[in-house]
Amino acid sequence: VSGAQPARVFTFAGGDAGAWRVVGMTRVLGDPLPEVSRVSVTAGTADAPAKWRLRGITSNERYVTRDEKGQLVAKQQGLGRPESTRAALIPIRKTAAWWALAQDERRRIFEESSRHVRIGLKYLPAVARRLHHCRDLGEGEPFDFLTWFEYAPADAAAFDALVAELRASEEWRWVEREVDIRVVRA
Amino acid sequence: VSGAQPARVFTFAGGDAGAWRVVGMTRVLGDPLPEVSRVSVTAGTADAPAKWRLRGITSNERYVTRDEKGQLVAKQQGLGRPESTRAALIPIRKTAAWWALAQDERRRIFEESSRHVRIGLKYLPAVARRLHHCRDLGEGEPFDFLTWFEYAPADAAAFDALVAELRASEEWRWVEREVDIRVVRA
Repeated sequence: VSGAQPARVFTFAGGDAGAWRVVGMTRVLGDPLPEVSRVSVTAGTADAPAKWRLRGITSNERYVTRDEKGQLVAKQQGLGRPESTRAALIPIRKTAAWWALAQDERRRIFEESSRHVRIGLKYLPAVARRLHHCRDLGEGEPFDFLTWFEYAPADAAAFDALVAELRASEEWRWVEREVDIRVVRA
Repeated sequence: VSGAQPARVFTFAGGDAGAWRVVGMTRVLGDPLPEVSRVSVTAGTADAPAKWRLRGITSNERYVTRDEKGQLVAKQQGLGRPESTRAALIPIRKTAAWWALAQDERRRIFEESSRHVRIGLKYLPAVARRLHHCRDLGEGEPFDFLTWFEYAPADAAAFDALVAELRASEEWRWVEREVDIRVVRA
């Protein structure tokens, strides 16, 4: 992690230690992850003992237009709000066919068909989110993306609706592995 | 490197060993790289002794449309042609302002203004190329992209024209570091 730059690499470790207590782990698609009781979220490439460790890096947007970005920035709030005692870690991997699509084809599925940004906007600022990319960290990453969401207990049903809307979209037909890990601040 | 998948991570090492003999190193923008006499190109994260070592990973296209991808695939040829005894390694880094642009803004600069794909197409199949991404390998990478080009001696002037066209484009105003390393097969 270089001096003045914000951290970009984050490690999510599943085991019996960490600030987040696991209240549910669901295999949505493909292979599950081993069950754990706690999840820790650390800036950098932490390597404390854990049952599994997932790494991702924040990066530039890949699909969002200037107009959409403006709307997101205006409505979204950061992670770490005191009332956000619920969180979810949702690792996904997309198919090789997805990655072989051209940029305009992926954009059409992502937004014109699946309304990915539009859906996310509906749940702002209640659901804060940080997207981590894994696919270009190296060749052996088990997932392409790790998304971390934080929200208050009163917004738990809204969060369920958000993920249900996305899973019903055309974009999700290109997802081949997904695990849904729900946690509460310990 | 996993079994059946093609390698995606490549290491370019500068030193006094390697299959490519350096015939010119030019600092185009920003900090130079230390002068070396040879460059090696290796699949994976090689760590043999070297004066400098640059790593990158091949990835999905970020800007190219289906139509453009079709034209590129139809015209391009692979690396390693026997007559391609000349090559160039051109590492570049773009500004933080570039990475803060939205996708549609970057696409407009990349193609509608700078004709990046259109320029590359003009020089196909003479100039073969492989693009490696570095920015999402981690936080400490010195460059964002490493592009490796191969061509025959008779196409050296055409290659010079290609890089001159790109450097004159709007896209290149967003480049803050660039080194141009020309090599011949040793």
